[in-house]
Amino acid sequence: MGERPDARVVERSDAVVRVVVACVCGSDLWYYRGQSPYQVGDPIGHEFVGVVEAVGSDVQRLSIGDFVVCPFAFSDGTCPNCQHDMMTACQHGGFIPAGNGDGGQGEAVRVPHADATLVRVSGEVASGAMLASLLTLTDVMGTGHHAAVCARVKAGDTVAVVGDGAVGLCGVLAARRMGAERIIALSRHPERQAVAKTFGATEIVDTRGDEAVTDVVDLTGGIGVDATLECVGTAEAMAAALGIARPGSMVGYVGLPHGIEFPVMDMFGRNIGVQGGPAPVRAYIPDLLGDVLNGAINPGIVFDFTTDLDHIADAYAAMDQRRAIKSLISVSNP
Amino acid sequence: MGERPDARVVERSDAVVRVVVACVCGSDLWYYRGQSPYQVGDPIGHEFVGVVEAVGSDVQRLSIGDFVVCPFAFSDGTCPNCQHDMMTACQHGGFIPAGNGDGGQGEAVRVPHADATLVRVSGEVASGAMLASLLTLTDVMGTGHHAAVCARVKAGDTVAVVGDGAVGLCGVLAARRMGAERIIALSRHPERQAVAKTFGATEIVDTRGDEAVTDVVDLTGGIGVDATLECVGTAEAMAAALGIARPGSMVGYVGLPHGIEFPVMDMFGRNIGVQGGPAPVRAYIPDLLGDVLNGAINPGIVFDFTTDLDHIADAYAAMDQRRAIKSLISVSNP
Repeated sequence: MGERPDARVVERSDAVVRVVVACVCGSDLWYYRGQSPYQVGDPIGHEFVGVVEAVGSDVQRLSIGDFVVCPFAFSDGTCPNCQHDMMTACQHGGFIPAGNGDGGQGEAVRVPHADATLVRVSGEVASGAMLASLLTLTDVMGTGHHAAVCARVKAGDTVAVVGDGAVGLCGVLAARRMGAERIIALSRHPERQAVAKTFGATEIVDTRGDEAVTDVVDLTGGIGVDATLECVGTAEAMAAALGIARPGSMVGYVGLPHGIEFPVMDMFGRNIGVQGGPAPVRAYIPDLLGDVLNGAINPGIVFDFTTDLDHIADAYAAMDQRRAIKSLISVSNP
Repeated sequence: MGERPDARVVERSDAVVRVVVACVCGSDLWYYRGQSPYQVGDPIGHEFVGVVEAVGSDVQRLSIGDFVVCPFAFSDGTCPNCQHDMMTACQHGGFIPAGNGDGGQGEAVRVPHADATLVRVSGEVASGAMLASLLTLTDVMGTGHHAAVCARVKAGDTVAVVGDGAVGLCGVLAARRMGAERIIALSRHPERQAVAKTFGATEIVDTRGDEAVTDVVDLTGGIGVDATLECVGTAEAMAAALGIARPGSMVGYVGLPHGIEFPVMDMFGRNIGVQGGPAPVRAYIPDLLGDVLNGAINPGIVFDFTTDLDHIADAYAAMDQRRAIKSLISVSNP
């Protein structure tokens, strides 16, 4: 989507990261479809992993050649919100691409507050499967995990996940990792149902709306689930999530809300709570990274379409036409 | 407010409790003010403690003469929601007065599912102060505690409490009991500020609306508080509560919502969550009762007006005119 100047260090706390693999976010499709303004040459993309190519004079914890994971939001790591593990509310942070900087869907990216933002991966990152899983830590795996955290998933729980996009599927994996015993995935697409099952879903509900609510409630003896992950952001998805939540439980929601209005009296009457927002994925990376590196989780299988920068339009098209769950862009060698 | 037939056992799981002390709830004032329909002779009152006077044939855990605390909601103790400590969603439960039964502001009350609903108090209940504190366990202390539970108060937290009625004041006490380090009480009434301080408030903010938000945020270095208790139920109180909540924190709300609409995008942008509803006080009584009996907490000081059944109209008037925080009705000897 156009040529841009080469990325370079601007602030002393910056690093420049050469992109190895990047990907397309569902939210990027808004530009692709013309629903959000975009000019050829504008930076785009906020999910990438790569190799440190240059560092500013204040950067102390990173060296040229380090392989790093970059969360979709940059943060200084020292403000009260960062210290509280809420990096998406960093007082000096923001979202990639930073300011007038570089997008992840390019050859290199300037990352502000590099010491605090980037997480170094020790050892060799050889396989493509490992690269794909590391790439999910920049957004979708951390976001699915955030939904599970906000839903207060705990060991032994029965959990429902509304939404079978990459985030919802990662939410299934996160819930399983946190010890959920039963995981009910709401999905109508056979290939996504298969990923959900691989990630630990024990049951699939392939209906929608009120029918889906009835089906999930029936599966739980008429009570509802212990924790609900809402990973879409539409009013219909939120209504389903609230409908299947058991009294006293939480709905964690991570899809950017579109037209959602909370039914206050119904929520109050049943003591249903909600929490969600932009995931502080930086806080979650160290923990999730360990499980990726030791093979306990393999979230990278959400990528079912791969291409390169020259063919990036195909990556958008595959997602736009729902032929792909999520598209990976190979940019350079690790 | 009129004569009613004597309370008697109807179902085999019922007990009849002779009322020792009862009280007036803020919600009872709706009847008093004519905002809700009420006919002389209708049962009223849902907060009382007393002595078991009769039991049905299925009652096994209670004996005539037992001194008991009765939560404002009755529950069977065995359904999945009760087992999940969410007694206000009991599948066979309801609120006192039960059906066409008896209100707490009377001489005796029929209590359904007595074994599961009533909590026996061991030992002698001699002092009036102890009676008053036991009486708060039927509603306001459990409800303030629920706000703190929903707000996820934890040791060391800075907590804010919006609302200086009996529930808000009990919320201060609950937050202190759960280990909050700083407790900011929003109150404009000197006598309520004094109770808040007795209960553990470390700071008082006596402004309202946007000004109160600014003041609380300033007290927390521009960040907001770790946990917020909204104990009023109005749109203005909820706006203040959401405004002072730090990113990633929870607002626990327990006042029956009046005109509240949640600002979804603001909540999402800052990862602020909400949870609340009718408090499952039955679940909290055993724990809180221990602290009342050993003197660790003394919530009964929220009662600053006392009278008897013959003068109950004075109890309503004192609360209606805000001369009293909460009115206690002495009905019979323990």
